[in-house]
Amino acid sequence: MGFVHYIGAQELLSPNGQLAMRFSLQGDGTPVYALSYKGKEVIRPSKLGLLLKRDPKSLIHDFTVADTRTSSFDETWEPVWGEVKTIRNHYNELLVTLNQKETSRVMMIRFRLFNDGLGFRYEFPQQKNLTYFVIREERSEFAMAGNHTAFWISGDYDTQEYDFTTSRLSEIRDLATKARTQNVSQSSFAPTGVQTSLMMKSDDGLYINLHEAALIDYPAMHLNLDDTNFVFQSWLTPDARGDKGFMQAPRGTPWRTVMVSDDARDIVASKITYNLNEPSKIRDVSWIKPVKYVGVWWEMITGKSSWAYTDEYPSVQLGITDYSKAKPNGRHGATTANVKKYIDFAALHGFDAVLVEGWNIGWEDWFGNSKDYVFDFVTPYPDFKVKEIRDYARSKGVKMIMHHESSSSVRNYERHMDTAYKFMKENGYDAVKSGYVGDILPRGENHYSQWIVNHYQYALEKAAQYRIMVNAHEAVRPTGIARTWPNLIGNESARGTEYQAFGGSKPNHVTLLPFTRLLGGPMDYTPGIFEMDISKLNPDNKSWVNSTLANQLALYVTMYSPLQMAADLPENYNRFPDAFQFIKDVAVDWDDSKYLEAEPGQYITVARKAKGTGNWFLGSVGGNDPRTSRVSFDFLDKGKTYIATIYADAKNAHYKTAPQAYTIRKVLVTQKSKLSQWVAAGGGYAISIMEAGKEATKGIRKL
Amino acid sequence: MGFVHYIGAQELLSPNGQLAMRFSLQGDGTPVYALSYKGKEVIRPSKLGLLLKRDPKSLIHDFTVADTRTSSFDETWEPVWGEVKTIRNHYNELLVTLNQKETSRVMMIRFRLFNDGLGFRYEFPQQKNLTYFVIREERSEFAMAGNHTAFWISGDYDTQEYDFTTSRLSEIRDLATKARTQNVSQSSFAPTGVQTSLMMKSDDGLYINLHEAALIDYPAMHLNLDDTNFVFQSWLTPDARGDKGFMQAPRGTPWRTVMVSDDARDIVASKITYNLNEPSKIRDVSWIKPVKYVGVWWEMITGKSSWAYTDEYPSVQLGITDYSKAKPNGRHGATTANVKKYIDFAALHGFDAVLVEGWNIGWEDWFGNSKDYVFDFVTPYPDFKVKEIRDYARSKGVKMIMHHESSSSVRNYERHMDTAYKFMKENGYDAVKSGYVGDILPRGENHYSQWIVNHYQYALEKAAQYRIMVNAHEAVRPTGIARTWPNLIGNESARGTEYQAFGGSKPNHVTLLPFTRLLGGPMDYTPGIFEMDISKLNPDNKSWVNSTLANQLALYVTMYSPLQMAADLPENYNRFPDAFQFIKDVAVDWDDSKYLEAEPGQYITVARKAKGTGNWFLGSVGGNDPRTSRVSFDFLDKGKTYIATIYADAKNAHYKTAPQAYTIRKVLVTQKSKLSQWVAAGGGYAISIMEAGKEATKGIRKL
Repeated sequence: MGFVHYIGAQELLSPNGQLAMRFSLQGDGTPVYALSYKGKEVIRPSKLGLLLKRDPKSLIHDFTVADTRTSSFDETWEPVWGEVKTIRNHYNELLVTLNQKETSRVMMIRFRLFNDGLGFRYEFPQQKNLTYFVIREERSEFAMAGNHTAFWISGDYDTQEYDFTTSRLSEIRDLATKARTQNVSQSSFAPTGVQTSLMMKSDDGLYINLHEAALIDYPAMHLNLDDTNFVFQSWLTPDARGDKGFMQAPRGTPWRTVMVSDDARDIVASKITYNLNEPSKIRDVSWIKPVKYVGVWWEMITGKSSWAYTDEYPSVQLGITDYSKAKPNGRHGATTANVKKYIDFAALHGFDAVLVEGWNIGWEDWFGNSKDYVFDFVTPYPDFKVKEIRDYARSKGVKMIMHHESSSSVRNYERHMDTAYKFMKENGYDAVKSGYVGDILPRGENHYSQWIVNHYQYALEKAAQYRIMVNAHEAVRPTGIARTWPNLIGNESARGTEYQAFGGSKPNHVTLLPFTRLLGGPMDYTPGIFEMDISKLNPDNKSWVNSTLANQLALYVTMYSPLQMAADLPENYNRFPDAFQFIKDVAVDWDDSKYLEAEPGQYITVARKAKGTGNWFLGSVGGNDPRTSRVSFDFLDKGKTYIATIYADAKNAHYKTAPQAYTIRKVLVTQKSKLSQWVAAGGGYAISIMEAGKEATKGIRKL
Repeated sequence: MGFVHYIGAQELLSPNGQLAMRFSLQGDGTPVYALSYKGKEVIRPSKLGLLLKRDPKSLIHDFTVADTRTSSFDETWEPVWGEVKTIRNHYNELLVTLNQKETSRVMMIRFRLFNDGLGFRYEFPQQKNLTYFVIREERSEFAMAGNHTAFWISGDYDTQEYDFTTSRLSEIRDLATKARTQNVSQSSFAPTGVQTSLMMKSDDGLYINLHEAALIDYPAMHLNLDDTNFVFQSWLTPDARGDKGFMQAPRGTPWRTVMVSDDARDIVASKITYNLNEPSKIRDVSWIKPVKYVGVWWEMITGKSSWAYTDEYPSVQLGITDYSKAKPNGRHGATTANVKKYIDFAALHGFDAVLVEGWNIGWEDWFGNSKDYVFDFVTPYPDFKVKEIRDYARSKGVKMIMHHESSSSVRNYERHMDTAYKFMKENGYDAVKSGYVGDILPRGENHYSQWIVNHYQYALEKAAQYRIMVNAHEAVRPTGIARTWPNLIGNESARGTEYQAFGGSKPNHVTLLPFTRLLGGPMDYTPGIFEMDISKLNPDNKSWVNSTLANQLALYVTMYSPLQMAADLPENYNRFPDAFQFIKDVAVDWDDSKYLEAEPGQYITVARKAKGTGNWFLGSVGGNDPRTSRVSFDFLDKGKTYIATIYADAKNAHYKTAPQAYTIRKVLVTQKSKLSQWVAAGGGYAISIMEAGKEATKGIRKL
């Protein structure tokens, strides 16, 4: 470690010396930091501080440096589940203690510099003159060194479910309106507001990512761009009155992160976000298990069947509406018979579990009405027999996955949570998919405000008490909290596959999620759609899935998650049993991951070693245009021969015109093999790479 | 029953024919009602309706009468506890169905006319064009027939803890600022805004009271006065965004009530509020029991001791602050030793229970900081031994009363409620005093908004599941809900005795509470203060209790409650054992009550028959000036002789100069006895009237 000491300035280097962070105070006592990578400017001098409510002085300037401490840290830890078996947490740290003289207040800023980026946070030690305070706005700046290309979604307090827009920073303002597609709950705040994780690329070849880590009991951070100077400023999510953070010292803020590299693969492989979170608070993690599942879900998403049981009433009231007298609409998805069909399918093909949505009363008018008592999470519809399904699933060796749609009626969910979690355990459900569709109750709160961020954490920790795994949809984007609470096995918090049935997503969407949303934790993206023409499921739905079938297979590898769904209907899988084999084979937990190719918006190719085996799975997804992927198999064990089954786009494949045109071929590969594979527009390929004895390889030609 | 039918107008008479309500539509289709009593105007023609959000048409005009239905109802029911053994619910009803043509919407207004007043509410049946709607404001009007004298407290969304102001309606505006004394949470909305229950007296001798009944899942109603025309208009409590009521048809609003009589005693005796609530939803009520109690409370209220355990920290954080290492401040009230002293005192004098406040960690900085996780309701301070106290109380035959101060952090309370209630039952607590001091969390909500009204109800119903009785302080004023949920054995919801230690209340305050606050349910007023000079308990507290000692005794009868505290310190009771005898003797549950004298702001005299006995207790309180009370004992059983012990103000008594000057005399009384009793300023008298055999009466002279 080397530090250059200036008067009033501190320099911190990354362990490998390639990143340098410089901290100093401006003449008016405003803290400033800057970051460079291999001598190139990443963050130009940028201010740090916080505006406080009813406090004109705030924590903005008039600081002096009271103390600086540097330290170094290097450890390796094992995640409960993940892309790799062990994660190295290696950084140099600078802790600056600042005094604000006139107010006799102390604020500390802790910087951690890794080889792949910077993390910093504010800390407020216990002190007399700063105990309770309200943050009007955080004023962390990220001054960019140029008019970078950004892969952004519009800043919003209530939704992250936007397609990415690729543009220069200077173009964000003009594109903002177009970028904000409709959502049932959305609140934009500025035409230059964007969300984290924000991915950028500079003209001189730097890949830069701005995000946050360990978002606990604090509003989620957005970024607002000064598009004249290319300076991003933090913009927290407000509460119902416009206040942002309620704080009590001693405590700190979440970490703000800047990942940087000249190789895009370093960004997708970065573990900074997890490393800035606390170790697991769950001691016995034996009950936390990766899950591959199917579910009664896509048929509702496409409109083929319904969550609701009846169409008879303009509205329903739990405890008052008598469902036993209601006329069924004949399209209800969560019937005992249909669920059993999925259980049979799961058992036949080796899936771990079955998710069922629309099983509980209340779906007739479940969102958009600011309805408080919208669900009770325990009362099934008359045609969903809880015990019968429990026993049937058990007899087939299949687990059930619970669904709790809160409809964003957060108080109502918390009131029922204990009872609902107990009901789950009694009926054989070890995991819950929770949902937060629609505007938040308490009314005026936002999906990402401190009050609601606190709720997601509450739901997660309470689930852990019951040994329940959580997959929270529409909740705040994850920020590595799964390190501390590994029962958070999934989140949505981005535009998932469902949008392919709501009009479609951009073909290159899946090349951006690993650079952004996935940096904070796994996504329940629900891939595996084989029928791209949604009108075949529901004539009224003219949506088209903008992806080839081979691309859908590759997603099981490129979109890392310990929770993977095969989202399409059993009948669609039965039409393509050879391709479906890959979904059956692919692992959901890994000992190692190698990012072979990566370029945001264009492609990602990754190979992963299945947990506890010698087998590998490789996935590659492309973007809007066709390309040729070139990979080396040098990650394989020396001297071994593997049977690789390659599921690829056929020559005529195209996401619009021929998505189901795929080829499957078996070849032998070794550490020395190289592959040149054509990828269609919206396409991809997937490979299972199985260790094989000599016998098995007979008659298979080498790659 | 007689109805006069006009075209477009309906008249409804009370069962005894003395009240007449007339309903009609204005030319523009606005519903209008008027009320008269013995031919005198009580409510001049007044509009009815509701303003809806984002609905310019609203439910205000353009109505036609689609249907009217009249009916009569007469039943007698037995309250679980109360002033009387049976309550008659006798009324004539008019149900008007209104169509709003252009919108095809239906609104019903249900009127119930009793002999002592009117109740009406809006009802919204299930229909296609009115399902979910948001109330911007309710527009129920109450047009007064003159510039009445009103006994009012200022309209406020967050506190009811004001002294009453007596003035003409026309004077409210000028007096408003003075009437709004300081409170830790308060939000006024208009200089002519007042709260219900609002008591008035007309120049022609009518006593009129405006209130509401069955306030469930709806914002509490205030009244705003048009002081030119003396028209009150309903003004609901808003939520964080200013919206007022979120509704889903089918449902109705709470009842709006107008009580009226030319005899003030009819108002305090009225049971309209209870009658407009639903019958008990608790089937087995055997666990609901009236309670007379003492507690570790007044010593903290006066500042003699503290709720907090330590003064060491600027703030504390539950789960982080280590109390075992904290230095005790030496003034902590809820110590095991002190609690045992109270248990001994309770056992010695026959009290049912002991309340202890400040027993659980967190009191060091418990309000004013918008602190979310402020209490956990289960972790005691190091010097409060839960099990030891439980066992000690049990051995003495005394129950413990739990204290849950939520600090208005409502979500936090709900999150801990199940655990806290379970903890209570495990440790011998059957009743809880809950508190809502300070501004509400979720922030921006108000104490009386729909969201929070819903919470109080939730806490009450959940308590019933655990067989726990509730005494909620700072919660919304009760509206007769104790009929439906008789485990609501008390509320504060007005300016209680504690204000006597916060600078004092007006001497006539207690002559107004029965005309206002108590109409909705019992108040935990915590009477029984024997030492009026608070500086004797705490030299730093110069407060003075504006009441004579005899007045304090009378309160046990005049302020009906199934929950009565003897609030002063044991040492103060030990100084006056003869007077204390009345508190020991007085009942807390009754078979009958006779209001003998009543005039708002001046006096109330009531005699009550102790439950299941032949004994009576009589209480009389006066106001600011001395007076002579004259009562007949004709309520006693014919032919029986009773020993009456009269606790009265001595001749020199005065609340300021000689509050402890009292006399006690024993006399024999019969049904024919009459008493003329002088009452000091701020004074009163109390009488125990015990059935006595001939032997016992020897040597006692007749009244």
